[in-house]
Amino acid sequence: MIIQIENTLSAEQKENILSQLALIAYKATEVQTQKGRYLVCIGKKEFDIRLIGSLKGVLDVHRVSESYKLVSRKWKVGESGIDLGDGVKIGDGRFALMAGPCSIESEEQVRKVAEHLVANNIRIMRGGVYKPRSSPYAFRGMGMEGLKMFHRVCREHGIKLITEVMELSQIAEMTDYVDVFQVGARNSQNFNLLDELGRVDKPVLIKRGMSGTIDELLQSAEYIFSAGNERLMLCERGIRSYETAYRNTFDINAIAVLKEKTHLPVIADPSHGIGLREHVPAIALAAAAAGADGVIYEVHEKPEEALSDAQQTLNFAESELMIRKVRLLRDAVGLM
Amino acid sequence: MIIQIENTLSAEQKENILSQLALIAYKATEVQTQKGRYLVCIGKKEFDIRLIGSLKGVLDVHRVSESYKLVSRKWKVGESGIDLGDGVKIGDGRFALMAGPCSIESEEQVRKVAEHLVANNIRIMRGGVYKPRSSPYAFRGMGMEGLKMFHRVCREHGIKLITEVMELSQIAEMTDYVDVFQVGARNSQNFNLLDELGRVDKPVLIKRGMSGTIDELLQSAEYIFSAGNERLMLCERGIRSYETAYRNTFDINAIAVLKEKTHLPVIADPSHGIGLREHVPAIALAAAAAGADGVIYEVHEKPEEALSDAQQTLNFAESELMIRKVRLLRDAVGLM
Amino acid sequence: MIIQIENTLSAEQKENILSQLALIAYKATEVQTQKGRYLVCIGKKEFDIRLIGSLKGVLDVHRVSESYKLVSRKWKVGESGIDLGDGVKIGDGRFALMAGPCSIESEEQVRKVAEHLVANNIRIMRGGVYKPRSSPYAFRGMGMEGLKMFHRVCREHGIKLITEVMELSQIAEMTDYVDVFQVGARNSQNFNLLDELGRVDKPVLIKRGMSGTIDELLQSAEYIFSAGNERLMLCERGIRSYETAYRNTFDINAIAVLKEKTHLPVIADPSHGIGLREHVPAIALAAAAAGADGVIYEVHEKPEEALSDAQQTLNFAESELMIRKVRLLRDAVGLM
Amino acid sequence: MIIQIENTLSAEQKENILSQLALIAYKATEVQTQKGRYLVCIGKKEFDIRLIGSLKGVLDVHRVSESYKLVSRKWKVGESGIDLGDGVKIGDGRFALMAGPCSIESEEQVRKVAEHLVANNIRIMRGGVYKPRSSPYAFRGMGMEGLKMFHRVCREHGIKLITEVMELSQIAEMTDYVDVFQVGARNSQNFNLLDELGRVDKPVLIKRGMSGTIDELLQSAEYIFSAGNERLMLCERGIRSYETAYRNTFDINAIAVLKEKTHLPVIADPSHGIGLREHVPAIALAAAAAGADGVIYEVHEKPEEALSDAQQTLNFAESELMIRKVRLLRDAVGLM
Repeated sequence: MIIQIENTLSAEQKENILSQLALIAYKATEVQTQKGRYLVCIGKKEFDIRLIGSLKGVLDVHRVSESYKLVSRKWKVGESGIDLGDGVKIGDGRFALMAGPCSIESEEQVRKVAEHLVANNIRIMRGGVYKPRSSPYAFRGMGMEGLKMFHRVCREHGIKLITEVMELSQIAEMTDYVDVFQVGARNSQNFNLLDELGRVDKPVLIKRGMSGTIDELLQSAEYIFSAGNERLMLCERGIRSYETAYRNTFDINAIAVLKEKTHLPVIADPSHGIGLREHVPAIALAAAAAGADGVIYEVHEKPEEALSDAQQTLNFAESELMIRKVRLLRDAVGLM
Repeated sequence: MIIQIENTLSAEQKENILSQLALIAYKATEVQTQKGRYLVCIGKKEFDIRLIGSLKGVLDVHRVSESYKLVSRKWKVGESGIDLGDGVKIGDGRFALMAGPCSIESEEQVRKVAEHLVANNIRIMRGGVYKPRSSPYAFRGMGMEGLKMFHRVCREHGIKLITEVMELSQIAEMTDYVDVFQVGARNSQNFNLLDELGRVDKPVLIKRGMSGTIDELLQSAEYIFSAGNERLMLCERGIRSYETAYRNTFDINAIAVLKEKTHLPVIADPSHGIGLREHVPAIALAAAAAGADGVIYEVHEKPEEALSDAQQTLNFAESELMIRKVRLLRDAVGLM
Repeated sequence: MIIQIENTLSAEQKENILSQLALIAYKATEVQTQKGRYLVCIGKKEFDIRLIGSLKGVLDVHRVSESYKLVSRKWKVGESGIDLGDGVKIGDGRFALMAGPCSIESEEQVRKVAEHLVANNIRIMRGGVYKPRSSPYAFRGMGMEGLKMFHRVCREHGIKLITEVMELSQIAEMTDYVDVFQVGARNSQNFNLLDELGRVDKPVLIKRGMSGTIDELLQSAEYIFSAGNERLMLCERGIRSYETAYRNTFDINAIAVLKEKTHLPVIADPSHGIGLREHVPAIALAAAAAGADGVIYEVHEKPEEALSDAQQTLNFAESELMIRKVRLLRDAVGLM
Repeated sequence: MIIQIENTLSAEQKENILSQLALIAYKATEVQTQKGRYLVCIGKKEFDIRLIGSLKGVLDVHRVSESYKLVSRKWKVGESGIDLGDGVKIGDGRFALMAGPCSIESEEQVRKVAEHLVANNIRIMRGGVYKPRSSPYAFRGMGMEGLKMFHRVCREHGIKLITEVMELSQIAEMTDYVDVFQVGARNSQNFNLLDELGRVDKPVLIKRGMSGTIDELLQSAEYIFSAGNERLMLCERGIRSYETAYRNTFDINAIAVLKEKTHLPVIADPSHGIGLREHVPAIALAAAAAGADGVIYEVHEKPEEALSDAQQTLNFAESELMIRKVRLLRDAVGLM
C-alpha cells in the first residue's frame, strides 16, 4: 500500500497515521522525492483501505501488492513524462530519439554527430566517457575530460546529453555536465549506485540487467524512486539467450509488459538489443510499434573506425533513413 | 553450392556434371521439387564456379556456405510467395492474417469464428484437431471427424484452413482436408515428419522449436524443401527464456534475421509468442513493423469458455481492433 | 489421485468406484500396465480419501497433485528397478554403466567396443542406427540392417543394447532386436511416439528435451506409463543455456530433483551433457555423486575417425580410467 | 603474451623490452602484484617468442591468446593456493569448507554457528553484513557494527571470515575486519570495485554473474589480478535458466571447465546454486566430485527463523551430515 501524504503534514498527523498502520501490522517507509511525500507500507493483513484514506493529511492511497510500489501503475495510472528543459521531453506521449556514439572519442567526432542530430531534429545525444569493459586491457573511456568536452559541444548545439555513470563516487563530479544519468546493464542491480542516484536532481535511465527480470528492473527503479528521484525511465537492451545468431536477444515483450506495469517511460535500445547494424532499424520500428516511448541507438560518422565495437553502430545515412521510418511509423501508431 | 539443372536433363549430361563435381571432391544430392530440379553439393575445395555454370544442362549455380542451402537467400534472392488458390496468397509482398481457435471444438464454434474472419476479410483460418499436450490426461483434439467438419465450414465460407499434423501416419488421411499443414514447435526437429511433408503437395508452415536456433529452423525447412516441397513458410512463436512474466519470449530478432537469411515467408505467432491476451496486439504490431509476412493468432467467441488455454486468445472485439491496427501499420510500412 | 485396483476387478465393482468418483466430480482414466491396473483421477474437490480406500477392489490410493501421477514418488515411495534379464538390472540400488559409439558404423567397430565393454564388465551397449541430424544432408544411420548386426554382436558378447527410435512406424520392426528403446531429446515431447512406446513390452529410456523442464519430462514419462509400460527410466543430457564454453549445460540439479520426484531410475549422459571429451569423466563423477542410477556415454576405438561428432567421445583408455573412477566413487557413496 | 620481469628490472632493461615489443606491434601493460611484476602484451603478429625470452630481465614468457591472461593456465600451469594464515589454506590440493548464515543477525547467532564450525573442524565462516536485496524495503544487513562483532567472535574461535563487499567506498573501513572479500553475483562485472580490490592485500572470492559466462568470470578475475592482487578464487553459484523447479541452475560444467582454464581455486556455492535446502548436499557432493577446491554454503541454527531466505539454509544436523559425506567423497577422489 502507498499513502501519499501532504508535504506539510504535521508530526502529530503523521503519528496518527503510523499508529493506524501499527494496528494492522503494516511497516511504513517514508519516502520524500522531488515531487511528493509518501508512506510505502508493507504488510499482509486485509483491511478496509478507506480507514486510511479518511485520515487527516492523506492525499491518496492505493493498494500495490507487487514487490515494486511507487513505480507501479497501480499507484499512478497516468504516464510520468520527464522534462529535460528547453522543450525537450520524454514520455507521456512524446516519443524520444536519442543517438550518438558508443564512446566519446574526440571533439571532432562529437561535433559531427551533433550536427547529424541537429539536422534530423534529435535533441538528445548519447555517448560514453566511462565504459564498462569485460577486459581490463580495453579502452575505458575519456573520463571527465571527455565529458566536459561532450557537454560543451552539446550545449553549443542546443542538445541534451545522456551518459553512463559506473560508480557512485563519479556522480558528484559528473552532475554539472550531465542531463540524464544512464545506469548500464551490468549495474542494474548495483544497489549502492541506485540509492545514490535517488538523491540526485537529474533524470536517470536505468537499463535492464543482462538477464534481469521485469520484476527486478522495476525494483531497481523503486530503489531510485524511493530514495527521492522520480524522474526515471527504463530501458530494454536485449537479454541473454541461447541464440547465437545475434549478440543479445532484444525482448519486445518487455516493452509491452513494462508499459502495462509502470507509469515510467520505457525506452528501447536496438543497438545493443540485437547487436547487428543491419537489423537495428527493424528492432527500432518494432519497439515503436509495441509502445516504446523512445529509442536510444548508436550512430557514428565512420562506424568502421570507431574505438568501440562497430557491429551495432549506424552511419549517418543509415541513421537518417531509420529516423524517417520510425517517425512515419509513430505517426501511423498515433492514429490507431 | 547449389546447381539448378534442367528438368529434362539427359543422363549423359548429368553424368558429366557429376564427374566435374567428383574432380573437386564435392558430394551431390539430387533434389526434385514441385518446381525444379537441383544438385545440392557439399565440399570444401576452392574452385572457379564458372566451370560448373558453363556445363550443359545447368540453369543456375550459386555458392551457399550455410548449413542450409535451398532455403537460403544466397540461392534465391527474391521472395517465395505461396499461392493457396482462390486469390489467397502469402508472402512476396502479401501480408497474411490467419486466425482461429486453439482447438476445433464444435461446428458452432467454427462457424462463429469463420463469420468473424469473413467479416474482417481474413481468408485463412487456424484450428487444431490433433493437439500436442504435455499431459496424457488432457483433451487431445477432435481428430479426423473434427477436421472434416472444420474443412466443410471453411469451404462454405470461402476460407482456407491451416492445422497441425503431429505424426507422419496422419498425413495421408488429412491431406484432402487441409490447405496448409502446420508443424508445431515440439515437432520442429521431427525429421521423419519433415521428410514426409516434403513429399506432399500442400504448403507447410513450420514453427521454430521451443528453444530452436535460427539455424536449426532453416535446416528443418531444408528437410522439407530437399524432399520435394518448396511451398514453405517459417513461424516464430516465442522461445524459452528465464523470464516468467510471460509464457514465452517472442523473439522479434528472429523476424528480422530470418527475412535476411531466407527467401521463405516468415510468419509471427503472437498468441503463443507472449501468451498474454492483452499483449498479443502489441506483439503482432511489432512483428509487422519488423518485416513479418503475416500473423497467425488465436481468436474465439468466448475465450473464457474455450477448451484450451484461454490466456492467449482474443475475443472478437479485441481481434477486430487488432486487425484494424495491423493493417494501418502495414499501410504505413508500405510507404517507407 | 491414483487408485490401484485389483486386476480381477468386476464390472460391478468398477462401476461402484466410478460412481463414487462422480459424486466428487473426479474424472477417471483407466490405466492397465504390464504390472497393474489403475484409475488416474483428476478433480479439484476436497474429500476424505478413506471413502475411496474402503471400496471393494481398491488395493491402494494416494493423492498426487502434480501434473504427473503414476511416475510420482507420491504414488510409489520406493524405487522402480528395471530387469533386462540375464542378471542385467538398472536402478533400485544397481548403478548401471551403458557405453558405445554415437552411430553404429560397421561390425568391426561394434565388435571392438563390445570387447571393451566386456573387459570392463559393462553389460549394456548404446549405439544409434537411426540418427536425428539437424541437416538433411548428413549421415542418418545404418537403419535396420545395422540394428540386426548390432544385436547379433551384442548377443555374442552377452550384452544388452539400447538404441534410439525416431518414429512410431519403426517400433514394430525394431522390437525384436532391441533391449531398451531410447527416446531422444528432440522427441521428448513426440506424444504419438510416447503413446506407442507405452504399448511395447520393452523398457524405455526417455531423454529430457533440449530445453525441457523437469515437469515436462515427468509428464512425457507419464504418457508411456499410462499407456501401459512401467519399465521406464529418465535421462538428463544437458540443457540449452547462454553459455558457449560447452555444447550443452549438463544440469546436475535435475539429477537430484528427479530422484526426489519420481520412483523411476535417473540416468546421466555426460557425453551430450557437456559435449567436451576431456570433461566427460568429471560430469559422470558428479552425476554419480548427486545420486544418478547410471551413466550412458560415448566410446569409440578411434573417436577422431568416428562418422559422428567425435568431440564428446572417449577412446578406450579414457573410458577405462573413467569406469574405474566412477566405480570407486560409487563405492564411497555406498558407504555414506 | 605475458612476460614476467625481474622485480629489480632497470629502466634501461625495461626500455629495451618495450622497444622489442614495439617492433612487433605489441601493446604492453605493466602489472605489479604482491608477488611479481609482469608485462601483459596484446598484439596479433606472429613471431619467435625466444626473441623476447632471451632479453635481459625477463624471467618467463608464455603466449596466452585468451581474453584473460594472468589468470590463465597457459600462463601458470600449477595451482595457486591461498594462505589465510594460522594454517588455513585454500586450493592447491586443500579442499576448503566455508559455512555460515546468509546474514549476520546477532552475536548469539554468530557464536552458535562458530561453535558448529569448530566442532566440525571448519575454519572459515561466511556471513553477510552488507546484503544486496532486490527490494529497497528489505533488510540490508547490520553493516560495520555487525562486521566488527562477526570478526571478534571469529577470532575468539580461531576462525577466518569471508564477507561480501558491495561498494568500493566500503573497502577501507572493512579491510581490518575481513579475511576474504567476497564479490557477489550482481557485482561480478562492477569493474570499479574489481579494480579497487586489486589494490587490497586481502584474498578475494569472486562469484560468477547471474548469467555470466566462463570467459567473463575469468576476465573479471583478470581485473583484480592485473590491478595487483593475485590471491583470488572463483565461485560458481548457479546461473539463470528457464527451469523453475530450482531457484538457480548450479552449473557443474563450470567447475570442470574452470579447473582446466585457470590456476585459481574454484569454489562451489550449492546453497545459492540450487536454492533448495534438501538438495544442497547432493550439489556439494557433485561439485567435489567434479574437482572443486571447496564448498561455501549456508548454515543456521534455526533456518526457519533466519532473517534472510531460509529455503537454501541447512540446520546444524543437516550440515554435519553433509560435511561427513563431502569428506568421505574427497577421500575417495583423492585415491583416484
